[in-house]
Amino acid sequence: MAISVGDIAVRYGCRVAGDPDVVVDHVATLQSAGPGAITFLANPRYRRWLADTGASAVILEAGDAGECPTTALISDNPYALYARVATELSPPRTLVPGIDAGASVADSAAVPADCEIGPQAVIEADVVLGKRVYVGPGVVIGHGARIGDDTRLLANVTVCHGVDIGQRVIIHPGSVIGADGFGIARETDGWFKVPQLGSVTIGNDVEIGSCTSIDRGAIEDTVIEDGVKLDNQIQVAHNVYIGAHTVVAACSGISGSTRIGKRCMIAGAVGFVGHLEIADDVIITGQTMVNRSINEPGGVYSSALPMDEARQWRRNSARFRRLDDMAKRLRQLEKKISELSDD
Amino acid sequence: MAISVGDIAVRYGCRVAGDPDVVVDHVATLQSAGPGAITFLANPRYRRWLADTGASAVILEAGDAGECPTTALISDNPYALYARVATELSPPRTLVPGIDAGASVADSAAVPADCEIGPQAVIEADVVLGKRVYVGPGVVIGHGARIGDDTRLLANVTVCHGVDIGQRVIIHPGSVIGADGFGIARETDGWFKVPQLGSVTIGNDVEIGSCTSIDRGAIEDTVIEDGVKLDNQIQVAHNVYIGAHTVVAACSGISGSTRIGKRCMIAGAVGFVGHLEIADDVIITGQTMVNRSINEPGGVYSSALPMDEARQWRRNSARFRRLDDMAKRLRQLEKKISELSDD
Amino acid sequence: MAISVGDIAVRYGCRVAGDPDVVVDHVATLQSAGPGAITFLANPRYRRWLADTGASAVILEAGDAGECPTTALISDNPYALYARVATELSPPRTLVPGIDAGASVADSAAVPADCEIGPQAVIEADVVLGKRVYVGPGVVIGHGARIGDDTRLLANVTVCHGVDIGQRVIIHPGSVIGADGFGIARETDGWFKVPQLGSVTIGNDVEIGSCTSIDRGAIEDTVIEDGVKLDNQIQVAHNVYIGAHTVVAACSGISGSTRIGKRCMIAGAVGFVGHLEIADDVIITGQTMVNRSINEPGGVYSSALPMDEARQWRRNSARFRRLDDMAKRLRQLEKKISELSDD
Repeated sequence: MAISVGDIAVRYGCRVAGDPDVVVDHVATLQSAGPGAITFLANPRYRRWLADTGASAVILEAGDAGECPTTALISDNPYALYARVATELSPPRTLVPGIDAGASVADSAAVPADCEIGPQAVIEADVVLGKRVYVGPGVVIGHGARIGDDTRLLANVTVCHGVDIGQRVIIHPGSVIGADGFGIARETDGWFKVPQLGSVTIGNDVEIGSCTSIDRGAIEDTVIEDGVKLDNQIQVAHNVYIGAHTVVAACSGISGSTRIGKRCMIAGAVGFVGHLEIADDVIITGQTMVNRSINEPGGVYSSALPMDEARQWRRNSARFRRLDDMAKRLRQLEKKISELSDD
Repeated sequence: MAISVGDIAVRYGCRVAGDPDVVVDHVATLQSAGPGAITFLANPRYRRWLADTGASAVILEAGDAGECPTTALISDNPYALYARVATELSPPRTLVPGIDAGASVADSAAVPADCEIGPQAVIEADVVLGKRVYVGPGVVIGHGARIGDDTRLLANVTVCHGVDIGQRVIIHPGSVIGADGFGIARETDGWFKVPQLGSVTIGNDVEIGSCTSIDRGAIEDTVIEDGVKLDNQIQVAHNVYIGAHTVVAACSGISGSTRIGKRCMIAGAVGFVGHLEIADDVIITGQTMVNRSINEPGGVYSSALPMDEARQWRRNSARFRRLDDMAKRLRQLEKKISELSDD
Repeated sequence: MAISVGDIAVRYGCRVAGDPDVVVDHVATLQSAGPGAITFLANPRYRRWLADTGASAVILEAGDAGECPTTALISDNPYALYARVATELSPPRTLVPGIDAGASVADSAAVPADCEIGPQAVIEADVVLGKRVYVGPGVVIGHGARIGDDTRLLANVTVCHGVDIGQRVIIHPGSVIGADGFGIARETDGWFKVPQLGSVTIGNDVEIGSCTSIDRGAIEDTVIEDGVKLDNQIQVAHNVYIGAHTVVAACSGISGSTRIGKRCMIAGAVGFVGHLEIADDVIITGQTMVNRSINEPGGVYSSALPMDEARQWRRNSARFRRLDDMAKRLRQLEKKISELSDD
């Protein structure tokens, strides 16, 4: 696959500074690019590599074009344009339709002929697959689950019974969709399991990383709306609702019945106490403990302390254990000084 | 499956306010329930939905009965009673005994005829299964492992060699029981692997969520006692001991050789430094770093700061980096004022 | 397998205090050891068990030899010597060469005859295995991946296409190597997937725990150097670089393009903001948020607060929310007192 810079410019409505007939056939980083490579500059951290790049073309913002030593493709959103071009140059692997002889597919499952079902995959009774679904090696789809067109379940994914997944969804290896939520009721001599009778509903264009868990609802469904992107190692508890186009970075955990709005950006290792409501467009920084609802859209929230050298850290954190006492002593001093000043 | 409210009351020893002949056949939430549904009120957060519920019956505490617009089942523990009723109305899927043709079962494995072994499951040599064990699709049971009666290993679970699991245990998809603990010994030019020669012993009535890891012991066993409930995405290191009926929420990590007492409640994303001892009935709140042993039973412990708006947060956390200095300055002020006052 | 203490001493160059003809045939802990057992004392926490040990021999430092009631093997590094001896007494299971009839191996895959390929394993096209590779049950190796000599991929591991793994690597169950990195570009109406075209390169003698994720690079590779040891439940994002012999404990998350030096020790649940550089020999304590680069080798860094009783904790953390205000008030007091003193 090869494409001229001019063709890219026409297709995506951006401007060329330099030779539009330059042809590119692969992507590379600024620092390692050679002839035939197209690259991009989006993060200012990497600007130092621009002047010496060996790329045939660079996608960048207008403000960086002056320093570009080669053909420039000028875009308001270089990273997104790069993503589009890279997808053209390296399209996802095309399906090889058919059911591998080593797969196990129930008679009552509906598997269109244009699906690819890998070796050791298991498709239980009454599963309904859409068109062009990819079911990777070792994937298990529980009875009655429904998978939309063009969705790809990669190796060793588990989709439990009754789960409903939309179109063009990608789920990476090792993730588990629809296991029982953590519902237990205290009794005098231990805990009694609360049946988890809801399911999971996942919209279109959702991507879910590796080793992520999304539990089924207790009574109603856990819901992941269209365009949500979840990274690896994430916990989504029962009856969570995640609004459209929200993204969640790795290692975050969302407790039960929490509702997150649209287009939120949740960084890594964030923890949500349960039963909260988070407004649209909220940003939460890494390792935050979200311990209350956020009603106002668009804010930025934090609770993780920045790192320090351990010796200094120990001193400060020891003081923290007496912070309430410090605050009281400060108040007393203020009173005393006020009295002294009055004298 | 359908049952009258009167029958529920008799079976579980609770009181009916309203018509005991009302029949229910499914569960629902307060806000979405319709005819034939039984629901419950346990979390005061949901009391606002009670007056308008369309349920045929509601399980609740005596204090809420006055506001119930329909038949009420009055219980001291509505959530537990709900769990019991929901289990009756929606019992777990019954086993379909037999070994799937696509499973791989070693000749020396003991698999009673009433077990169900799913497709692509692997049961290695000398494994011993109890009665009515469910081995889901893609499950791997390593050589010599023992699984008790009525235990269910769901899809893609891995049980490593020699692990001993009790009765009525449920392990959700993707979890790994008995992988090597993280034992490495420093040598001059790197690390040398310490053989992990213990195993994992899991008691009866334990439930383990999805994508959770429980490592085998270095010399002796990692032990999970009866009735323990572990959520998803949890790390249990080698030689941890978890006492009976303790519950651990998602994303928590328990370091090596930590001993946790009975009936503890560990919230999500809690981290334990290794080699600690935690008394019975201790409660630990979310994201706490448990950095010392807790000898007294029944306390509540924390270490995560509450979330704040990011701008305010940055100001406070910048001050934190000089907290020790602040404490010293406060002490000096106290001295000076004491001197001034003495004058 | 049995060995005399004298033979151990000769082989590893250490000193015997007591009878060198004592023969040991298994390992045990100090407190439970009986005849024939060899044990060790490395952690001072366990010294209290030394005097009463029933072991036939104890590996310990010279300073502890006086209190040893039985034959002592004196070493500067008792834990490493124990690891060597335990490996001799309990060597890893030997391979049973051959391809299980239930495995799925592509015709174009290169699988030497001395490899062991377990049931339900999947080896896709153009995979190249080294000598004596163990591919456990349910393992999936994607097309074009390369696995070095003596590497062991345990049950249900997923190695994605094109990944390159060195020699003597161990990957524990449920881990996923080479899934797509979390690359998404914001567009006006959602997110566009950025193709992840790099791969993962893993050196020799690496060990990776269970349920750990290592993502493939966006353009170039994610790199794990020789001798790195990763625990369970870890997230390694795209284009991370981890230097030789660095160890990372469970539940940590390393964000994209972070470079970590050699011989670092990262404790559990540590989170790294992306695009950082960490020098060699750095130690980071548990639950730290690493929010900036560390240029100086060998330091120790922290950011997690120690646990407190919850009531006290709430008081202190409430004060924290006004810490900036406290600091300003302290400054004002200092000024006032300075003025009063001047009077």
